Amino acid sequence: MSTTPVSKTLYALIAGVGAGTGRSVALRFAQAYPVVLLARKPESYASIVSEIRAAGGEALGVAADTSDAASVAAAFEIVKRELPGKTLAAAVFNVAGGFAIKPFLDVAVSDLDDSLAGNARGLFNFAQATLPSLLESVPTSPHPPSLIVTGATASVRGSARFGTFAAGKFAVRGLTQSLAREFGPQGVHVAHVIVDGVIDIPRTAAYTVNEGKPDGKISPDAIAENYWNLHTQHRSAFTQELDLRPYLEKF
Amino acid sequence: MSTTPVSKTLYALIAGVGAGTGRSVALRFAQAYPVVLLARKPESYASIVSEIRAAGGEALGVAADTSDAASVAAAFEIVKRELPGKTLAAAVFNVAGGFAIKPFLDVAVSDLDDSLAGNARGLFNFAQATLPSLLESVPTSPHPPSLIVTGATASVRGSARFGTFAAGKFAVRGLTQSLAREFGPQGVHVAHVIVDGVIDIPRTAAYTVNEGKPDGKISPDAIAENYWNLHTQHRSAFTQELDLRPYLEKF
Amino acid sequence: MSTTPVSKTLYALIAGVGAGTGRSVALRFAQAYPVVLLARKPESYASIVSEIRAAGGEALGVAADTSDAASVAAAFEIVKRELPGKTLAAAVFNVAGGFAIKPFLDVAVSDLDDSLAGNARGLFNFAQATLPSLLESVPTSPHPPSLIVTGATASVRGSARFGTFAAGKFAVRGLTQSLAREFGPQGVHVAHVIVDGVIDIPRTAAYTVNEGKPDGKISPDAIAENYWNLHTQHRSAFTQELDLRPYLEKF
Amino acid sequence: MSTTPVSKTLYALIAGVGAGTGRSVALRFAQAYPVVLLARKPESYASIVSEIRAAGGEALGVAADTSDAASVAAAFEIVKRELPGKTLAAAVFNVAGGFAIKPFLDVAVSDLDDSLAGNARGLFNFAQATLPSLLESVPTSPHPPSLIVTGATASVRGSARFGTFAAGKFAVRGLTQSLAREFGPQGVHVAHVIVDGVIDIPRTAAYTVNEGKPDGKISPDAIAENYWNLHTQHRSAFTQELDLRPYLEKF
Repeated sequence: MSTTPVSKTLYALIAGVGAGTGRSVALRFAQAYPVVLLARKPESYASIVSEIRAAGGEALGVAADTSDAASVAAAFEIVKRELPGKTLAAAVFNVAGGFAIKPFLDVAVSDLDDSLAGNARGLFNFAQATLPSLLESVPTSPHPPSLIVTGATASVRGSARFGTFAAGKFAVRGLTQSLAREFGPQGVHVAHVIVDGVIDIPRTAAYTVNEGKPDGKISPDAIAENYWNLHTQHRSAFTQELDLRPYLEKF
Repeated sequence: MSTTPVSKTLYALIAGVGAGTGRSVALRFAQAYPVVLLARKPESYASIVSEIRAAGGEALGVAADTSDAASVAAAFEIVKRELPGKTLAAAVFNVAGGFAIKPFLDVAVSDLDDSLAGNARGLFNFAQATLPSLLESVPTSPHPPSLIVTGATASVRGSARFGTFAAGKFAVRGLTQSLAREFGPQGVHVAHVIVDGVIDIPRTAAYTVNEGKPDGKISPDAIAENYWNLHTQHRSAFTQELDLRPYLEKF
Repeated sequence: MSTTPVSKTLYALIAGVGAGTGRSVALRFAQAYPVVLLARKPESYASIVSEIRAAGGEALGVAADTSDAASVAAAFEIVKRELPGKTLAAAVFNVAGGFAIKPFLDVAVSDLDDSLAGNARGLFNFAQATLPSLLESVPTSPHPPSLIVTGATASVRGSARFGTFAAGKFAVRGLTQSLAREFGPQGVHVAHVIVDGVIDIPRTAAYTVNEGKPDGKISPDAIAENYWNLHTQHRSAFTQELDLRPYLEKF
Repeated sequence: MSTTPVSKTLYALIAGVGAGTGRSVALRFAQAYPVVLLARKPESYASIVSEIRAAGGEALGVAADTSDAASVAAAFEIVKRELPGKTLAAAVFNVAGGFAIKPFLDVAVSDLDDSLAGNARGLFNFAQATLPSLLESVPTSPHPPSLIVTGATASVRGSARFGTFAAGKFAVRGLTQSLAREFGPQGVHVAHVIVDGVIDIPRTAAYTVNEGKPDGKISPDAIAENYWNLHTQHRSAFTQELDLRPYLEKF
């Protein structure tokens, strides 16, 4: 943990916190801000909250399902109570959403609905809940208040048998572009990150990618560093879309 | 109406039939096939069915809400009964979906849900209902059986205040790409058309676009002709994505 | 050959005529217009001129190197003399340009220069020579006067070891987009076609693509039909970019 | 200037150094490496070399025209002599290339040739001269050796009357993609940056953009910081293409 004192008036919020990107992003932003971690289940964030606190940072975990507007509203009531007077410097939407890879004729409409709800509706609820606070931070935040959205290869490519996943990820990208065009001129940096590869997390430990060579999977800490770099971009030079992939990845 | 006799074994299906593109597509495909017209309300297709029949073609209108799988299933029961033994040569998804242009913080989550349901879930249900029959037609159809999907500028660009519309249209594009990659190699032509401009239909009569100059709005008959050209492409030269815009349109 | 009489006042011009796409395009447009065939060497067009004349069409072959402005100017002097008073309905730029697939550090700068000259400068000279006549045809041509440019996979994707080819093809695409935006509003249809696959011509007879399955290579006649369809699009519904690939092609 | 000692074994090279991006990039990379500045005329880099040296950094200016392979070779002879034993950590191609904004029919073919030579051939020569040394640095460089290429809006959009500029910039993008796919798996990070706006430099001081609001032009220092961030990306998370634009920019 950095020795820089964390902000007294700003905080960061990460939705979709588990053992991978979410954890790394939370740790990175905790070097500068108190961080709030959202996940559907407390077990997803509990150990990360402890990890941040043990390192001298401030962290709060709140259970919330971003696909449900009421759940998001309830979570923000808790945040307001626990972090009174603080406004958002950064909001990261890192929710994975549903994921069914099957021949199209074997997919259930509920698979599609899950993908759309988890991805598009989740971002919608998250953005509606965070943008007012991000806008409020514009005059005082040392870095442009940022809404950063995690995407995937499927955000820009509908591969065979990935239809429902692509539908959700494409929808998120379209909505994010629209938010960037509406809120950018108001001073909020809205960025979309295409994570084009397999992330190196416990869940993917058994996958062999890029012939098993070193750094053939994406380091979640590297993703987090890039999110921090996006957040600290000068407002005269905002990136709207960033691609990240291992040096070995075919694309 | 052409004097070519319509097919005895194949038919075409157009979902989203109203006074604009749907009507023109139905009339165009009726020159070669019996056509089935789907719309939520019978008044949307009734006069078009009459128009096709009066010209010597075969047409059937069926009320269906493509965003509802049960409604689609019921519609196909009717189609099977009325067109026994026929399989699909072409299926056109031309459903408009929800459309709310507002500042993002004023949009309701139901606006998003409507867009996702009307666009993405609508296409999902439509594709699941039609692809088995399209596949069945591959060996015998004179032209590659085709699934053609109508898109819009918002399919590739999330403009400010168009977020929910873009979410639905991006989702449709992602799903369509995936279907193209899965079913193309099986002989079904899946194409996505980006209609990049205002269509010249009764509903847009009052809009002034491209300074009101002639042909500044897209002719729905021209769209239909392009759909027919997509349908009749040789399988060695499929187009996956087609853009259509007035010669005057800024892009 | 169609029985429709060819135009008395308009003609079509195809640059880059050999045994493949150029021949098929020439034959297709010769059904409606006298056609002029440009190639660097007369042996590239001689038999095609004969073939068109034998079928009752009008054809003229002129040797020209489109990468050389003086050569293009000389060719147009011949055209004006041989087809007095006629203006252009369609101009097709189908020149292949240089092509060196090598590890980058083994490529000579002359390979790059050849690709840029054959592709970008070739199109530049061709467009400067043809656009004045295409503009002149706007008021009288039954179809919007058209400038159609052949591209390739490398127009949108710089693959490893294809750098010089991609440089030339990307440059052509950029220039074509610019021409579309300048001349479209003046009534000239400028379109770019991404031919994404191997064309089925004598030169590629030995290539095994798509596992050797039928129609795994692109039919040049199918390309020509698509060019004709582009040419005859209504001006309210111009396509700027068309992709063409075999149903079996991975993309 | 940072107090971090500059590298003893690595250096950075920036081609296209003038009062704007090139200067800022040189200053930024000089915090970690000795820097070599290339420009056609010594007056373009002389004051920047002095500025870096005055701040305690190491800098060398060399006159070279990157569009001329012999000039580039001569420049590298000087570099090898002046920085014996050092290999490249970073090479930045920031050459502007020709620029003629005119109606297409008024453009000279020499305008096109200048754009292609300055942009595409310039990058070609620069990449051939630097990649062997970048490859050599892979095993020892603390950050992945990087080739970073400056692009513009015209790299991805051919606007009306920008045809020759777009041709050059598109060509550069295609070549850069190809290099990324060939050299990325060998450990060299090849990135393309789309600078989508007017840069805030002396030459653009009189331009009013984005209504003259603060930070409506891109800060060259912000560009430089982003180039540094690209250079220091972990090899499991390379960005191939980065867009940078003012928060106020329409896109």
